[in-house]
Amino acid sequence: MKLQIFDSTLRDGAQGEGVSFSVADKLKILERLDGFGIDFVEAGNPGSNPKDSEFFRRARALKLKNAALVAFGSTKRRNIPPGEDANIKALIGAGTDYISIFGKSHDLHVDCILRVTREENLAMISETIGYLTRMGKGVFFDAEHFFDGYKSNREYAVKTLEAAAAAGAKAVVLCDTNGGGFPDEIARATRYVCERINIDVGIHCHNDTGCAVANSIAAVKGGAVQAQGTFIGNGERCGNAELCVLIPNLQLKMGYSCVPKGSMATLTETARFIAEVSNTRLRRNMPYVGECAFTHKGGMHIDGVTKNPATFEHIAPESVGNERNFLISEMAGRSTVISKIKKIAPDFKKSDPIALKLTERIKELEHKGYQFEAADASFELLVLKELGKFEPYFEVVDFKIVSSLSSKASAMIKIRVGERYEITADEGDGPVNAIDRALRKALEVFYPALGAVRLTDYKVRIINSGDNTAAITRVLIESTDGAVTWTTVGASENIINASMTALLDSIEYALHARGNLRKP
Amino acid sequence: MKLQIFDSTLRDGAQGEGVSFSVADKLKILERLDGFGIDFVEAGNPGSNPKDSEFFRRARALKLKNAALVAFGSTKRRNIPPGEDANIKALIGAGTDYISIFGKSHDLHVDCILRVTREENLAMISETIGYLTRMGKGVFFDAEHFFDGYKSNREYAVKTLEAAAAAGAKAVVLCDTNGGGFPDEIARATRYVCERINIDVGIHCHNDTGCAVANSIAAVKGGAVQAQGTFIGNGERCGNAELCVLIPNLQLKMGYSCVPKGSMATLTETARFIAEVSNTRLRRNMPYVGECAFTHKGGMHIDGVTKNPATFEHIAPESVGNERNFLISEMAGRSTVISKIKKIAPDFKKSDPIALKLTERIKELEHKGYQFEAADASFELLVLKELGKFEPYFEVVDFKIVSSLSSKASAMIKIRVGERYEITADEGDGPVNAIDRALRKALEVFYPALGAVRLTDYKVRIINSGDNTAAITRVLIESTDGAVTWTTVGASENIINASMTALLDSIEYALHARGNLRKP
Repeated sequence: MKLQIFDSTLRDGAQGEGVSFSVADKLKILERLDGFGIDFVEAGNPGSNPKDSEFFRRARALKLKNAALVAFGSTKRRNIPPGEDANIKALIGAGTDYISIFGKSHDLHVDCILRVTREENLAMISETIGYLTRMGKGVFFDAEHFFDGYKSNREYAVKTLEAAAAAGAKAVVLCDTNGGGFPDEIARATRYVCERINIDVGIHCHNDTGCAVANSIAAVKGGAVQAQGTFIGNGERCGNAELCVLIPNLQLKMGYSCVPKGSMATLTETARFIAEVSNTRLRRNMPYVGECAFTHKGGMHIDGVTKNPATFEHIAPESVGNERNFLISEMAGRSTVISKIKKIAPDFKKSDPIALKLTERIKELEHKGYQFEAADASFELLVLKELGKFEPYFEVVDFKIVSSLSSKASAMIKIRVGERYEITADEGDGPVNAIDRALRKALEVFYPALGAVRLTDYKVRIINSGDNTAAITRVLIESTDGAVTWTTVGASENIINASMTALLDSIEYALHARGNLRKP
Repeated sequence: MKLQIFDSTLRDGAQGEGVSFSVADKLKILERLDGFGIDFVEAGNPGSNPKDSEFFRRARALKLKNAALVAFGSTKRRNIPPGEDANIKALIGAGTDYISIFGKSHDLHVDCILRVTREENLAMISETIGYLTRMGKGVFFDAEHFFDGYKSNREYAVKTLEAAAAAGAKAVVLCDTNGGGFPDEIARATRYVCERINIDVGIHCHNDTGCAVANSIAAVKGGAVQAQGTFIGNGERCGNAELCVLIPNLQLKMGYSCVPKGSMATLTETARFIAEVSNTRLRRNMPYVGECAFTHKGGMHIDGVTKNPATFEHIAPESVGNERNFLISEMAGRSTVISKIKKIAPDFKKSDPIALKLTERIKELEHKGYQFEAADASFELLVLKELGKFEPYFEVVDFKIVSSLSSKASAMIKIRVGERYEITADEGDGPVNAIDRALRKALEVFYPALGAVRLTDYKVRIINSGDNTAAITRVLIESTDGAVTWTTVGASENIINASMTALLDSIEYALHARGNLRKP
């Protein structure tokens, strides 16, 4: 059975903490959601945010393949005809084929927040939707606080839906606005509605009990045919139902059809793209799309998955475009290290004494604050060095960095490549930027292709390695040559030294592992 | 009805990525869980990890008020009596009153992973539990992959539970080891078991479909009386059921009794403590305990909550020791800024033109990369400055920092307090540490009480303020005087300048807002 998927990343998702989209960001996300096969993309509230009007103007110029754009706004004000209400005019001005109208279905809100009579509220719903329908719009009625209203005054809550349906709405959307619901009650209330309302029923859940995904599934089982959420769960308070979790649950595990089959393998990439543009990071243990969703740490789990992936994986990671990982840790032990080494050196023998030596070396570095779980490139270099398969491309002989109140940071550096030395200097926006620039300037004399390599992320974490020891700074650097991305790690009591270690690893990795940057 | 709560933060939680507990960490968490009123704390696998043996030795010396310690291990090996199996000996050596024994209940695992006959597996369960019961232990049988086994071969899966019950187990725990389950099927299978097994039934869920909390609730409704999880959800792959979400769901919203009533107000603090010791951060939008769980950004939500908190909050934040917040953002607009200002200056009038000026100033700073959502102290200083209620305590006239390959970073600084100047220098583990030390050294000449203030966290984020502009570094600094903690922010293209801004704010805040650090 085909379900309609309705994404509100650009509207409800923008109400999450730390999220602030530019118009360009919104257009990028819209195109991506469309490419993924989302049916409806709710993209803004033109009445409350002037930036949204510019967005809709530019979005209309895009050729969307799958998604219909939806503008969002409230029912009209009480004492004014819908055609004269500024918000309704702005909604029409957005020029979308579909409009979501939110209105009150909980008597408490009608009485205390809206402060109109219950009949007036029904009229506001009915007149707004009737007007927009006559203007040729497909209208969804977002029944705000529906489930709370259902508990408080079931008859009235359902009347608001009936008013919307009678006025020509295409669907009523049952909203758990406060996110306080649980699957059983959501399923029951949705079933009750579906037995009484003849138009499509949708579900819109928030995650304040940690049950948004389960609640959405419960509603679908209760008869809802439209599932709303935000792709990576961004939204007010604890966020909205995560579509990147809900869609694979419904489509891969329960037999519903949500998006084109071929899209599913791009789920992880799509989630990461949206996180990137939203300037948030996906939580690492997020189901399906997180970096650790298929990461095994316990020795027995690793052993099991090696024998048969189904033993500790509920679906194949490839089916959602993610991948399996084994972690380096005291728990995983030698067999993980060996399986990692084999990826790097396929001819490596399990019995080689280097395996034990390497395990010891990793433990020692972890004790000093390193962590290789996220630093694939540093791990690879470490393995190559222990195997004697790595020859340094250069050596940093000395450097000095100066920062002051009034000027840019500056750095001097002296390096050696073979028998030749190079001394140079550069300045930058900060000490790490200055030394990065000076180092590259010196190295490009010998390795011009390094010009294509650049830093894409720089993360700093202060860790305490244990009681009574000094704080250690761990730096993770992400680099790219445009085609591939790799991460390196450094740890030290000194942020500059930690940064330098990660920086040097990043460049060594570029020189060694990337075929297009050969030794001169 | 009283449910047993079983926490596995120290065992299953240690299998989460990035988690590595020292013995001291484990003891701290154990004491905290005990204080919170958890019934059972599963704390390690003495057979597979030597560090765990030391932990159990030291843990036995603690006087626990509520929690019983549980050691964890597998069924004995096939061809050996339980009393001679090294893992079983280690379990007994742990000296706990309770032991969790995990065994296979899914035929696939018996055949392919364990590679014993199905009868042998039943005997391994039965003999292991029988032996430990005779040794006076309370034994829980963790039926690994129970729900997958139930689907694959229901009769055999239930036989493994019967074998455990017949051998004297105190409870059988149904494990959704791969985390692939959904509430309906979990409820049905649990109900089926509860109708057939006479001992306590527990539930242990993983979060690979994003439903671990909902699945645990479904099992409780199906008859389970023991709910397992990890306090903040740490665990293999996507983690375990989050007890800090499950417990308030069950106790505050569904009428079950899980922990002493008085504990509930310490839920947030406990979750944050465990995150801190685990060296992970709670996700900001985590239900109940996240920093944003009760944070409102949308203007209408803020308006509603101001009129009546129940309009957009499913429970009172105080009931779980969390608090309500309004975010500063283009969406929230002036009313949020005003309500924030009123917290700082209660006599402030809404009509004051400074409100608009301040909103503009905040937007301008946000555009430059600042973010006040998490930086309460910087926001407060900003308000005080705009209101003319703040007089600087000192001025930094100049500084210079030098870092090099071979030595510690060093910093010189010149400050002015009133008409007096102080020039000094210090060195540190990195440039920020060096300038921090030099600054404090200079300031303590005038403000000796500053000696009590120290940095507790230092976070760096690289952000891009928009297309075609340079990368900006945002620094958040958390400081404490031992009693209170505050956060300040700085943003700049230069990490040193961003750090200095946050550092200076931190110290200004300490001098201004903390009553015990008066001006000389």
